[in-house]
Amino acid sequence: MTTAPVTLKDVARRAGVHTGTASRALNPQTRSLVNPETATKVMRAADDLGYRPNPIARGLKTNRSFTIGVLVPDLTNPLFPPIVRGIEDTLATVGYTALLANSDNDPDKERLHFETMRSRQVDAFILATAQRDHPLIEDAIVADVPIVLVNRTVESTRAFAVITDDHRSAELAVTHLFELGHTKIAHIAGPERFSTGKARYHGFVDTMKKVGLKPDRTLIRASRAFTEREGATTFRKLLDGKGEFTAVFAGNDLIALGCYDVMTETGMRCPEDVSIVGCNDIPFLDKLRPPLTTIKIPHYEMGVRATQLVLEQLQSPSAEPVTVLLEPELVVRGSTCPPGR
Amino acid sequence: MTTAPVTLKDVARRAGVHTGTASRALNPQTRSLVNPETATKVMRAADDLGYRPNPIARGLKTNRSFTIGVLVPDLTNPLFPPIVRGIEDTLATVGYTALLANSDNDPDKERLHFETMRSRQVDAFILATAQRDHPLIEDAIVADVPIVLVNRTVESTRAFAVITDDHRSAELAVTHLFELGHTKIAHIAGPERFSTGKARYHGFVDTMKKVGLKPDRTLIRASRAFTEREGATTFRKLLDGKGEFTAVFAGNDLIALGCYDVMTETGMRCPEDVSIVGCNDIPFLDKLRPPLTTIKIPHYEMGVRATQLVLEQLQSPSAEPVTVLLEPELVVRGSTCPPGR
Repeated sequence: MTTAPVTLKDVARRAGVHTGTASRALNPQTRSLVNPETATKVMRAADDLGYRPNPIARGLKTNRSFTIGVLVPDLTNPLFPPIVRGIEDTLATVGYTALLANSDNDPDKERLHFETMRSRQVDAFILATAQRDHPLIEDAIVADVPIVLVNRTVESTRAFAVITDDHRSAELAVTHLFELGHTKIAHIAGPERFSTGKARYHGFVDTMKKVGLKPDRTLIRASRAFTEREGATTFRKLLDGKGEFTAVFAGNDLIALGCYDVMTETGMRCPEDVSIVGCNDIPFLDKLRPPLTTIKIPHYEMGVRATQLVLEQLQSPSAEPVTVLLEPELVVRGSTCPPGR
Repeated sequence: MTTAPVTLKDVARRAGVHTGTASRALNPQTRSLVNPETATKVMRAADDLGYRPNPIARGLKTNRSFTIGVLVPDLTNPLFPPIVRGIEDTLATVGYTALLANSDNDPDKERLHFETMRSRQVDAFILATAQRDHPLIEDAIVADVPIVLVNRTVESTRAFAVITDDHRSAELAVTHLFELGHTKIAHIAGPERFSTGKARYHGFVDTMKKVGLKPDRTLIRASRAFTEREGATTFRKLLDGKGEFTAVFAGNDLIALGCYDVMTETGMRCPEDVSIVGCNDIPFLDKLRPPLTTIKIPHYEMGVRATQLVLEQLQSPSAEPVTVLLEPELVVRGSTCPPGR
């Protein structure tokens, strides 16, 4: 059985709306101009009649796929889901969809995903995977692929990026500990290859000096990864070293959790024996034993702003790279107290 | 400046591989047949030369987009990231990519995302959003859209689904509490509109009877949502009711966290005053105060199996719907102890 092809007019008639409204409702890019109920009605009508505009064909014509490639290191790291939600919620308002993949901080894996997404003709990328030196990102920027970095950035080239002021995060942490009376403050830094790890490390050293404390080299150790396991390993090394300390600023919350694990193992009490400050404010820290004092970074907001930058870039491809720096915030909970209490 | 179009042969020559290898490496569907290093080399060569196969044009020809639409209620609910990783890791092995969106359990929002993804011509869907009665899913199954449900399923129609044996989860929880000596056991059920909420509720009632306890209607309350806030509200109602209880089986971990909040507020001690068992085993429960006893469901594995089912369905569109039931597991931590201790 063959039937005449269903037209936009047929869809509009069935939905009881003007053809223009139907057209806007069916086009992902203009859908947000129609109220959701009407859009749903139009799409149901299109569905009932078997009408489906072909955006792949439209993609060939306008060179737009209305998709954005999003790469994160690991979605099961609780830092990333709220960033991704910020991205998706913002994309949805303009009818875009996110293609998502995990790199596990593995350059080969990342390049595979990146190329696969390019071959799917995504219109742009949002990458939460940046390392300070990052050949893939550098190459792509040179090749004019629209890219916005989020949470971490590159040093080697000028990029669009939305990050938190990580130097300031460390300043907030150290100042809090200093004001509690701590002078022997250790730092378990994140990996230096990430802008977050490096900026927090510099923020630590600079703030120690600013408040009049001498940063002690034996009390600064870099964790091999931003993970609970590596945090634990590094905290053990710190304990085995000869330096004495009463407080630790951990490079992120997962590293702080690693410190908790070792303290539980060895019978140390937090905060009585050692105060701990994390960084990021991932979910459920308020329910830990003890609740973790940390620096809250605006995860969701970073996702939103990065998406706005991507959409601006698509509209004005010649815009100049810009780094948006968002403000962190100290959240005092139960893992910090004056020393020797 | 115009140049002759770059051919597959040029790419193969530059990468130092056979044309067949280059072709397999550049095709997402066959890429897994080539070792990752070679695939990366070929894609770099293609990139250097400006060669890019056009899968959108190929999509028109073969009617495949090599993308799968994935809908979850809310990525920031810690239950979903490991499921999504299981999906993406499995898709990546066959060169597929996931389009991801959040429904917030809002049918209109879900339909918008679903239709947007269909208009992007995804090859199939994996939905973690199922309600027991679910018009969108029912319609789509009737219309032969390849769909696999994960974590939750529908009742109203025959669907491909990968879920945990939720009835068994409740059985494990109640049996654990009974063996500790509890006889006054309350249940804060999840919403009945979800298969998980309903099956766990029935598992609770059936197991109470099986061990010889009479389920007390005043001790069974349904939470309006699987959230910490609704869990707290419902636990307060339970406390305000006249029924006495020494233990609670919470419909999921977030509801259990709501119980924790109210116990902290009111000065009740867990587990001394009331034992709590959660369900799902989301991350970091081992670090709560007290560590939460719960039922571990195989999140990642559900994602993997759902993806395998999708890929099988794409190969054999006439396959019969099947529900894969995975086994939960009791994880005893610090939130349960004998009553009156």
